[in-house]
Amino acid sequence: MEVWFEFASNYSYPAVMRVEALARQAGVDIAWKPFLLGPVFRALGWDSSPFVVQKAKGEYALKQDMPRLCAKYGLPWQHPSVFPRRALLPLRVALLASEEPWVGEFCRRMMRLHFGEDVDIDQPGVVADTLAILGQDADEVLLRAQSEHNRQRLREQTDAAQRKGLFGAPTFIVGDAMFWGNDRLEDALLWACGERYL
Amino acid sequence: MEVWFEFASNYSYPAVMRVEALARQAGVDIAWKPFLLGPVFRALGWDSSPFVVQKAKGEYALKQDMPRLCAKYGLPWQHPSVFPRRALLPLRVALLASEEPWVGEFCRRMMRLHFGEDVDIDQPGVVADTLAILGQDADEVLLRAQSEHNRQRLREQTDAAQRKGLFGAPTFIVGDAMFWGNDRLEDALLWACGERYL
Repeated sequence: MEVWFEFASNYSYPAVMRVEALARQAGVDIAWKPFLLGPVFRALGWDSSPFVVQKAKGEYALKQDMPRLCAKYGLPWQHPSVFPRRALLPLRVALLASEEPWVGEFCRRMMRLHFGEDVDIDQPGVVADTLAILGQDADEVLLRAQSEHNRQRLREQTDAAQRKGLFGAPTFIVGDAMFWGNDRLEDALLWACGERYL
Repeated sequence: MEVWFEFASNYSYPAVMRVEALARQAGVDIAWKPFLLGPVFRALGWDSSPFVVQKAKGEYALKQDMPRLCAKYGLPWQHPSVFPRRALLPLRVALLASEEPWVGEFCRRMMRLHFGEDVDIDQPGVVADTLAILGQDADEVLLRAQSEHNRQRLREQTDAAQRKGLFGAPTFIVGDAMFWGNDRLEDALLWACGERYL
């Protein structure tokens, strides 16, 4: 199952926190697919996050739905002081690390800092500290993450998201089937297990 | 718990089909709140349903998510040949009947015709047939539903939805808490039972 996500996306937060454990229980392999939501939104004609463009929906999502969801899942939540917050550097690192065994823990730590502690995660120091905690050579990882080759790969991954018809995050892809939103994580995993409900 | 819904709204379909039985199990009283989604969307600056304005999202919702959700809930699904479909007359009847014991069954039958059988439910004959099945005097109900008084009440209910900050349907209101979407029906009922997750 492909897990398409953005660190800037608030509903990607609970999905990223939950997906690895749930997939393991379900016996489903996952592929981490970090991508840039901004270009996808702009290509759809939206200037920013729907939660900025559609104010009432954004107020509800960030002030009512997210705090309740996080409480339900036992996740910390802090109303973000900046939204949406750019998270280019962590996305580049996640892309670089997407087949490393530590990618899940890296993503969870970034998400927890962003939405659980309202930390600006687009800072090299913040990313480096997390890499160090994970036993990685932070300088080396950051250098490779910022290379022109890796920047280009992130642009290409974002193009791929658009070609697949993604319009938001998180999105789970299982074969031809697309599942949009944290609310569909369990359904996507059932689908990946061959469950067709019928 | 207030159940705000629109017959034109595809995600109101599974919510309307499920809410009465789930609320009864949870011991929660519900108030049926039919309203017009069109004026609410227009007041938010959207010309039509977000599933029309945002094509990719609409394609996903109607061609992937709805068929799967309906299969999961054991509900019939037919891709609507017209979307969004006007459902003014059934909404007026639902409003008129909103405190009658047969309101739930009326709403479910309208929804099943609309999204399960792709029937144009804004036709007096279709509504009359359903009223007759429910043992109601169809002519009398339709006359009262179409009265200026009842038309005005539906406009007022729609104004009330806007004052409450609704931006979509279905929406469940429990005190000050708003829950948007069929996906939040269970959470809203837990909230109505006093569950605060914390």
